[in-house]
Amino acid sequence: MSADHPGVDELFALLAYGEVAAFYRLTEEARMAPNLRGRINMASMAAAEMNHYELLRDAMERRGVDVVPAMTKYASALENYHRLTTPSTWLEALVKTYIGDALAADFYAEITGALPDEVASVVRGVLAETGHSQFVVAEVQAAVSASERQRHRLALWSRRLLGEAITQAQYVLADHDELVDLVMAGGEGLTQMAGFFDRLQQTHHARMQELGLA
Amino acid sequence: MSADHPGVDELFALLAYGEVAAFYRLTEEARMAPNLRGRINMASMAAAEMNHYELLRDAMERRGVDVVPAMTKYASALENYHRLTTPSTWLEALVKTYIGDALAADFYAEITGALPDEVASVVRGVLAETGHSQFVVAEVQAAVSASERQRHRLALWSRRLLGEAITQAQYVLADHDELVDLVMAGGEGLTQMAGFFDRLQQTHHARMQELGLA
Repeated sequence: MSADHPGVDELFALLAYGEVAAFYRLTEEARMAPNLRGRINMASMAAAEMNHYELLRDAMERRGVDVVPAMTKYASALENYHRLTTPSTWLEALVKTYIGDALAADFYAEITGALPDEVASVVRGVLAETGHSQFVVAEVQAAVSASERQRHRLALWSRRLLGEAITQAQYVLADHDELVDLVMAGGEGLTQMAGFFDRLQQTHHARMQELGLA
Repeated sequence: MSADHPGVDELFALLAYGEVAAFYRLTEEARMAPNLRGRINMASMAAAEMNHYELLRDAMERRGVDVVPAMTKYASALENYHRLTTPSTWLEALVKTYIGDALAADFYAEITGALPDEVASVVRGVLAETGHSQFVVAEVQAAVSASERQRHRLALWSRRLLGEAITQAQYVLADHDELVDLVMAGGEGLTQMAGFFDRLQQTHHARMQELGLA
């Protein structure tokens, strides 16, 4: 697989829009924080997303891509995901942050093996700062261990987040053959894609256990 | 001047709240951006504010300060400044960003000379990333060279920003003797403070010329 595979520009553009969308959503959802500490944690996560965006932007510029127009192709899938998963409580916002961060990390981990070195190193750089969402775990665990109703509610919410993420990912892949070709490199197409989504479900289940939701 | 001057903790706490407040305000004001490029520029600036916050937080933690409670003392002055200078157009938002960044840099430049080395180096680190607001200059210059009315309007706005900043700075200093003692170290108190605000006005005028507003 060569670094000038046309899917590379598309992957970077998709991830770049994802970072900017996450920045604005995290910041908006942080309004629900009960205190300054929560708002600061969300702002730190949002800032990390923008630092990742800047890595992607620099990589795209080195590749001669006109960054902003390239990103806008992915606006609707990402904005739809966020619109369909607008949290109504601070706990929902926390869970969304955590699951979103984890799904992105899973996706990156699944695809890096198939990528040319210089592309994989950008993707690793973008991956580097997860762990920012660890502040979520203690707060969610405390809330759900105090309330079975809250646990049930957040478990449903978490499943909905995964479902919407997979739906939007499928729309994106259906529209961008070069992206499918890149991330499914050397594989058998749909069969492998089904395995990919299965593994996402499994790691998602592990995440729910970590949050005390399973 | 020793690094354990009680004003140092107060200065760091004030700057830290300032960074977090700027983060949220920039992000909110970015909604007025006419396009994705503008939203991205504002998000990058906001992320730089959070990176500065993290430097200050780390420095405060090394000094054994309980960061979040220390910061909340400065909430009202900074929130008042932002509330009283809520922009009503994208151009006003851009000018506010630029002037705010510049005033912060002027303030830092005025005080670093008086600070102990290890404190000054934190303040310099926080200063390091100005220049993010340079994207504002071209956009504002283009708008005001096309419209005399816009120029007049933004010049008034810019004066209002400076006035509110000075008002809030005076409130903060009036309430925090240890901060005055730190930033006015070795000086003659009020006389020197008047000189300080005079110099802010002069550099502000230079900024307005740069934006095409003078």
